[in-house]
Amino acid sequence: MAEVTIMGAGSWGLALAILLNNNGHHVNVWSVFPDEVELLAKERENKKCLPGVHIPENIEFSADTEYVVEKSDVIVLAVASPYTRSTAKLFAPYVKKGQYIVNVGKGIEEDTLMTLCQVVEQEIPQCTAAVLSGPSHAEEVGRMIPTTCVIGTHKKEDAEYLQNIFMNDVFRVYTSPDMLGICIGGALKNVIALAAGIADGLGYGDNTKAALITRGITEIARLGIAMGADPMTFTGLTGIGDLIVTCASMHSRNRRAGILIGKGYTKDEAMAEVQMVVEGVYAAKAAHKLAEKYNVEMPIVEQVNAVLFDDKKPSEAVKELMLRDKKIELADSDWR
Amino acid sequence: MAEVTIMGAGSWGLALAILLNNNGHHVNVWSVFPDEVELLAKERENKKCLPGVHIPENIEFSADTEYVVEKSDVIVLAVASPYTRSTAKLFAPYVKKGQYIVNVGKGIEEDTLMTLCQVVEQEIPQCTAAVLSGPSHAEEVGRMIPTTCVIGTHKKEDAEYLQNIFMNDVFRVYTSPDMLGICIGGALKNVIALAAGIADGLGYGDNTKAALITRGITEIARLGIAMGADPMTFTGLTGIGDLIVTCASMHSRNRRAGILIGKGYTKDEAMAEVQMVVEGVYAAKAAHKLAEKYNVEMPIVEQVNAVLFDDKKPSEAVKELMLRDKKIELADSDWR
Repeated sequence: MAEVTIMGAGSWGLALAILLNNNGHHVNVWSVFPDEVELLAKERENKKCLPGVHIPENIEFSADTEYVVEKSDVIVLAVASPYTRSTAKLFAPYVKKGQYIVNVGKGIEEDTLMTLCQVVEQEIPQCTAAVLSGPSHAEEVGRMIPTTCVIGTHKKEDAEYLQNIFMNDVFRVYTSPDMLGICIGGALKNVIALAAGIADGLGYGDNTKAALITRGITEIARLGIAMGADPMTFTGLTGIGDLIVTCASMHSRNRRAGILIGKGYTKDEAMAEVQMVVEGVYAAKAAHKLAEKYNVEMPIVEQVNAVLFDDKKPSEAVKELMLRDKKIELADSDWR
Repeated sequence: MAEVTIMGAGSWGLALAILLNNNGHHVNVWSVFPDEVELLAKERENKKCLPGVHIPENIEFSADTEYVVEKSDVIVLAVASPYTRSTAKLFAPYVKKGQYIVNVGKGIEEDTLMTLCQVVEQEIPQCTAAVLSGPSHAEEVGRMIPTTCVIGTHKKEDAEYLQNIFMNDVFRVYTSPDMLGICIGGALKNVIALAAGIADGLGYGDNTKAALITRGITEIARLGIAMGADPMTFTGLTGIGDLIVTCASMHSRNRRAGILIGKGYTKDEAMAEVQMVVEGVYAAKAAHKLAEKYNVEMPIVEQVNAVLFDDKKPSEAVKELMLRDKKIELADSDWR
């Protein structure tokens, strides 16, 4: 059994802590805030992020970075995307050569346009980086609902080691060599989820949302392929699978924020109402810049940016998406 | 403007009749039952299939096969899959060379393992066959909710003609040369929707359903590719798009039947409760036979068949799907 530390005590970090504890590992949960550590150790519940889910007594809480990093076989980085680099910087000095760091955050760094895994590898070049992603709302993993994920690494034996760490009867883990594709899918799905939420907020139906999800994964894949990812990754659990769960579930903060925007809230009002970090708002800008950099067409991303940052009316944005030119569905499958 | 006849007065046929009437075409709705024609002409509403949706006065109802077929530019075949061949046989004698027949039904003929388009082309070899499919619940199309579909034909100019017939501000139509892929996706999604419903009925969450949908489209694509379809079709509106809407929406009879089965109803009790034809029950057997014929692995299809026809417990079926071997996610993207 392994010694594992979760960096970050939000909903996803805690759900994974409980999962790994159930798998028989010794689990530490680290937070940068000593008072958060103290409260969690006392209450054994995160009342804001994962209410009603009890955190077992053998999970250890700590704010001592050196202590938890030095004793761990595996570190799971579970902080919101704006804090990925600063957190990685903080614990980099204690990471041994080859130590596993599994990033489970989702986003693109706006200034550098790097994926979060690339940020980790830049800040901690001595580590063995990995990514865990897939359709996995924390609220359901915490309640042992059957869930599937993918672990991505550069080397096959690392993926297989980590697969064994995470996998159990209700948490099925696949492996993949395509870290880049996994990271892009995870970051960009939140932008499409905002669009899906906006359509819901406007009172549109399941047909509209299915169209947004389908056209959404197409434009994510178009960007990902231009960046060098494997096209097939976007058809899998970390691509369309995660996009579906994010667009369909009321657990998704991005979708909930989108619904409010569709109903007429401003971006800031919606983020205040949802109360947690809405990753899609950060990712929207980064996706727009990536589309320009790699010269790919991303109509949904463009319309979401216009609604978020240029005060475009949501109903106008959806209308423009529906009224684009008549097209062959798949550009590369023309009649012979 | 065109003269169009819809063969079949169910929910999808009537929603398309209203759409085409709004587009300015003259629309006839044909039914094999004279008393159904009489009732619909009087009430201007199908209270069972599409309640609350008014059928405009200039839509003509008729049970006279020769009359409607001979005057039509375009015939839309909108009957449930078990009646496709018999209906096609009935009106075949009146079809002119090159007359458009757009099939909008979804299924595989169990005895012959032919797609419905193949059945139409066998019975009416003189016609120009087409297929219209995509994430499009009739209930929403009837209420002008933004919807996207794909028209598939053998020749590009036919797809473009039909695209113009169907397309408007709220009904966006793409074109595709891959009739086979469109037909397979449409037929088999209903089997996966049964599985998704069963998972819902068992009380599983959005994570489980997203996994079923994602793994579901993978196995549909695996079969489709073996049969000669374009792999990309399954990533589009008629593949994953239609699968999403069928698995997520309460409008889906297949999903509703699955939910009841997950809660402990037998197949026959569930079908009686849903009251309309549950295409997935027919398609499940055909999909099982196709998987054997083309020697492809279809684990979800197998488990659905076991639940429907071999009294397997739904919870056992889901458990087996979750506990399959540890695998690389995408067989063809191994580490180099």
